[in-house]
Amino acid sequence: MAEEQSDGEVTAAFLVIGDEILSGRTKDKNIGFLAEYLTAIGIDLREVRIVPDIREKIVEAVNALRPHYTYVFTSGGIGPTHDDITADSIAAAFGVPIDVDPRARAILEAHYPPGQLTEARLRMARIPQGANLIENKVSKAPGFRIGNVHVMAGVPSIMQAMVDAIVPTLKTGTKILSRSVDAELPESRIALQIGEIQDRFPQTMIGSYPRAQDGRFTTQIVIRSRDETILAEATAAVEAVVRDATNQSA
Amino acid sequence: MAEEQSDGEVTAAFLVIGDEILSGRTKDKNIGFLAEYLTAIGIDLREVRIVPDIREKIVEAVNALRPHYTYVFTSGGIGPTHDDITADSIAAAFGVPIDVDPRARAILEAHYPPGQLTEARLRMARIPQGANLIENKVSKAPGFRIGNVHVMAGVPSIMQAMVDAIVPTLKTGTKILSRSVDAELPESRIALQIGEIQDRFPQTMIGSYPRAQDGRFTTQIVIRSRDETILAEATAAVEAVVRDATNQSA
Repeated sequence: MAEEQSDGEVTAAFLVIGDEILSGRTKDKNIGFLAEYLTAIGIDLREVRIVPDIREKIVEAVNALRPHYTYVFTSGGIGPTHDDITADSIAAAFGVPIDVDPRARAILEAHYPPGQLTEARLRMARIPQGANLIENKVSKAPGFRIGNVHVMAGVPSIMQAMVDAIVPTLKTGTKILSRSVDAELPESRIALQIGEIQDRFPQTMIGSYPRAQDGRFTTQIVIRSRDETILAEATAAVEAVVRDATNQSA
Repeated sequence: MAEEQSDGEVTAAFLVIGDEILSGRTKDKNIGFLAEYLTAIGIDLREVRIVPDIREKIVEAVNALRPHYTYVFTSGGIGPTHDDITADSIAAAFGVPIDVDPRARAILEAHYPPGQLTEARLRMARIPQGANLIENKVSKAPGFRIGNVHVMAGVPSIMQAMVDAIVPTLKTGTKILSRSVDAELPESRIALQIGEIQDRFPQTMIGSYPRAQDGRFTTQIVIRSRDETILAEATAAVEAVVRDATNQSA
C-alpha cells in the first residue's frame, strides 16, 4: 500500500469541485461511481477531496494531488456560469494560458443553432493551452485532459459519459480480485482472528465492514489480492473463522 | 469566502476514513448528512477528504486540516478490528499517548454481559490522552474529541447519533439563509445575467446548478446570504431574469 508507483500499480485521486456538495444541497453521486469504476479496471483510487468553487482552493488541491498519483480526475465547475471556474483554475495550477479553444468552439458551433452560441456558452470552450479535449456525448461541451489531470463535468450523466470516453486512454493496473464473506455476527466476535489472517497473508488486504440492520449487527469481510491462489486461501481461512464463531453463537 | 475566521463565521472540514469508500464497495452516506446538518446550524463545511486506512495518510490529513478550520470531524475506523486504526492515528497526529481509557472501559463493561468484553472489543476503549468521550447511543463504544477534532464512527446510524450528541457543544455561526429559483431553461440561457446579479450583490453567494432530466436541461439557482433583506432583493432579481428568459423561449 506504499505510495510509490510499484510495478503494475496504477493509482488515482478524485477532486470534486462545488459549493453545492459542501452545503449538502446536492448529494454527490460521482464519488461512488468513479470509485467502483476504477476498482473494476484495476486502478486504485487512493484519495478524494471536495473543495468549494474558490480558485485558490482548486489550484492548491490539484497541485497537492497530481505529483502523487498516476491520474487525477476532477468533476464540476466547467459549465457556462460565473461560478464555473474550474478550467481557469486548472490553467493557473499548471501555469499555462487559457482562452477559447478552436476545437472546442467548433464542437459548440456545430451543436447550437445559428446565433445561439452566446457569450456564456462560449465560456465552455475555454481550455488551458496544451490540453486535449474529452468528448461529451450528452451535451457536447467537452472536458479536457492536461498532464495527468482529467477535467470532467459535475452532472452525473455527463461525468459518466466522459469517464467512458477516457477509460480507453488510461493505463490500467493488474486488476485487484476480491471475495466477500458475510457473517451474521458483530465484527468484535471475529476481529482478533481476522487480524491474525491478515498477518498470515500480507499479500491480501482484508477489510471488516460492520452493518447495523434493524438493531442487529452483522459483518461483511472483504478479502482483496492481485493473486488468485492467495486470495482463495485467505478466503477459506476467513470462512472457517466465521463458521466456527457462528456455531459457537448458535 | 476568505479562510480567516471572521466574526460569526464557524467553519469545518470532514475527513472520511476507509478503504471501503475508496474502492466503491460502500457508498458514503455521511458526507451528505453532515453537510446538510452543518449548513442548517450555521457552520460552513469548507472541505472534505477521503483517505484510506493508512496511518500516515490519516495523520497527514488531520494535521493539514485542523489549523485551518474551527472544527474537524472524522468518520470511520474506530471499531474493534485490525483495520480500525483511527484512534491510534489521531493520537499520533496530536503527539499524545493512547491507551485503554477507564471511562470508555466502564461504558463497555456496563454494556456487555460478564466475560463478553473481549480483547478485540476492548480496542474500542483506546482513547488518546486528553480527549473527551462522545456518547454513542446506538452501540455504546464511544467516539472522542481532542482539540478541535471530533472522531466518530463510520456506520451512518452511529455517526448520526454521535453528531446529535456533539452539536450542543459546538459554537454555531450566523445561519446562512437561502432561497432557490427553478428555471425550466439550460443554465447557459441565463448565465450572464446571473453573473451580473452576483456582482451587484457581493454579500450573497449565488450558485447555478444544472440538471439533466429526461434529456432536458433545467437549472436551479440558489441564492445564499446572512442578511435577509439582501437575500430577498437578490432573489427578486434572479426571478425577474428567469421570468424574462422563460417568456422569450415560449
